[in-house]
Amino acid sequence: LQNPAQTLPEVSSSVGEFALIARYFTQPTSHTDLGVGDDAALMSVSAGHQLVASVDALISGRHFFPDAEPWGVGWKSLAVSVSDLAAMGARPRWALLSLSLPDNDEAFVAGFSAGFMACARTFGIDLVGGDTTCGPLTVSITLLGEVLKGKAVLRSGALPGDDIWVSGQPGRAVLGLHALQGRRELPPPFLADCLGALHRPQPRLTLGQRVSEWAHAMLDISDGLLGDLGHLLSASGVCAELSEAGLPLQALMDAGELSSAQAREAVLYGGDDYELLFAASPQHRAALEALSKETGIALHCIGQCLPRPLTAVTDIVLHRKEGGAPLRCPLRGYDHFSPSVVNQAPKR
Amino acid sequence: LQNPAQTLPEVSSSVGEFALIARYFTQPTSHTDLGVGDDAALMSVSAGHQLVASVDALISGRHFFPDAEPWGVGWKSLAVSVSDLAAMGARPRWALLSLSLPDNDEAFVAGFSAGFMACARTFGIDLVGGDTTCGPLTVSITLLGEVLKGKAVLRSGALPGDDIWVSGQPGRAVLGLHALQGRRELPPPFLADCLGALHRPQPRLTLGQRVSEWAHAMLDISDGLLGDLGHLLSASGVCAELSEAGLPLQALMDAGELSSAQAREAVLYGGDDYELLFAASPQHRAALEALSKETGIALHCIGQCLPRPLTAVTDIVLHRKEGGAPLRCPLRGYDHFSPSVVNQAPKR
Repeated sequence: LQNPAQTLPEVSSSVGEFALIARYFTQPTSHTDLGVGDDAALMSVSAGHQLVASVDALISGRHFFPDAEPWGVGWKSLAVSVSDLAAMGARPRWALLSLSLPDNDEAFVAGFSAGFMACARTFGIDLVGGDTTCGPLTVSITLLGEVLKGKAVLRSGALPGDDIWVSGQPGRAVLGLHALQGRRELPPPFLADCLGALHRPQPRLTLGQRVSEWAHAMLDISDGLLGDLGHLLSASGVCAELSEAGLPLQALMDAGELSSAQAREAVLYGGDDYELLFAASPQHRAALEALSKETGIALHCIGQCLPRPLTAVTDIVLHRKEGGAPLRCPLRGYDHFSPSVVNQAPKR
Repeated sequence: LQNPAQTLPEVSSSVGEFALIARYFTQPTSHTDLGVGDDAALMSVSAGHQLVASVDALISGRHFFPDAEPWGVGWKSLAVSVSDLAAMGARPRWALLSLSLPDNDEAFVAGFSAGFMACARTFGIDLVGGDTTCGPLTVSITLLGEVLKGKAVLRSGALPGDDIWVSGQPGRAVLGLHALQGRRELPPPFLADCLGALHRPQPRLTLGQRVSEWAHAMLDISDGLLGDLGHLLSASGVCAELSEAGLPLQALMDAGELSSAQAREAVLYGGDDYELLFAASPQHRAALEALSKETGIALHCIGQCLPRPLTAVTDIVLHRKEGGAPLRCPLRGYDHFSPSVVNQAPKR
């Protein structure tokens, strides 16, 4: 720890702070009444809309490698919040950035700001406020958006009988992470794909808005598919069973030269994916398949919601593709990742 | 730095995180459509109002002592943002909290949350979102509020001829800090007052809303009176001169046994005060004095705005109480605090 007797007085507003903010974070806004530079920003929420807000923190050495490319850190810091709003079916509008930096590292700030602003432009977001301080490298972003009143999709609306869908190709981010950690080798083209998924995730914003017409419940699977499915089931008061035939395993097995167990593990327990997981009535299957074709984003129907049992739901049944005894998979997130869990003997 | 090969996979959502959030940060809300627990929160901004947003970060060892009382850290973290909204004449409504903690320190979280929630209750704020991660102790808070459309008071509206006012008793926080650092001794009752100002600042929320009827420009003086006056003058395109007779020096001299130069230094260059500094037409003097009596919060008319000179304004004139040559005081903030600046020889 630093000596506060020396450091406390220095920080509340260094010239370096104001110069950094002015150079890298004061950008023209397109839909903001008053942006960076006053005590607070002013915005107008569209008539008939609710305000949506989410906050995410990323810490160096925890959520990204200390030597990570600054552009990617900037992109991802904002993209993970865009993914949160996508999972509500909302539209992101404004961001506030709290950035703690060791000794005003301008090279980092330049790259970070370029990636952050690229993400902001891509998704139509104005940066309206910030606080830059000297300290351990930490990024905290509040993303504000709007959604038509009453149209937000919560985690809590899934019904027994609903299909469970997941978008895109979960599992790539964790494979990229494991490759960086030397825990797995991947063929070079697929490695690049996985590192892209890890460092520059593409939040499913348009998809989330479109799916919100039909979804009873939705979230993004940043904590891993089964961990986040557990949150959805718990919030909705339902149970579920999954079918291995619906899981997007084959592409990982082919491109990554993985066994089916390895692919299943990555898809079900890999984190950092930022795909959408949602529940919708079976009557919308054709509409969702058409939406998938239209957007070019794969949508996989991976299982069904069931009535809630009397006991707490801590794991779910996965029916095997080849038939035989189903697997019982714990509903736990990325932090409790264990390679053995999906291979354990079924309990019933 | 930690080894990301070991730490990266652990953090995106530990059970500890969810348990901490559930225990300390899931509180009933009073004016929120959907609070903590989904991908994002949902709120409704009142008809005819603009949304107001501000973000502030506090870092252990920088903005507070590592051994600071957690209750005070929680209170102050939110209070400094309330002060930002007060300085716009706005009403705070919702907060999002990003909290980075070394190894889920539950004792800290318990005290922090109590102070944070006390501040939230005092000022009518719902906590609607949060992200708790493992890392160096850092608090980042986004405060959202609302203000009648077009009624926010910016920094940029001061006019030549306006009076310059400051509320309360600036200078106590820096005296408290210096006492803690062993740089100054203070009589015990006044020391307690100064430590209260440092650790549990009282943002001038009601005052800000009332003053917004008359103020052309306003901000809070977290960076020190003259540093923040510089921001107001620069944003408004005006200059100013101050009168020592208007500065609240006598109370510091009496209670703190300070010389007039020491008191002047604390009032003009002390930071962390969270008083309001504003410009208003002289025609409102009587109304402001009546408001001061009504609220019990002192309001000091400390000077006047002048037309902007052709050159950049880097310092201003302070007319001495006893007469004689005026002082020229640099418009700089707390980080460039130097005990000698207000005693230097006048340049004209």
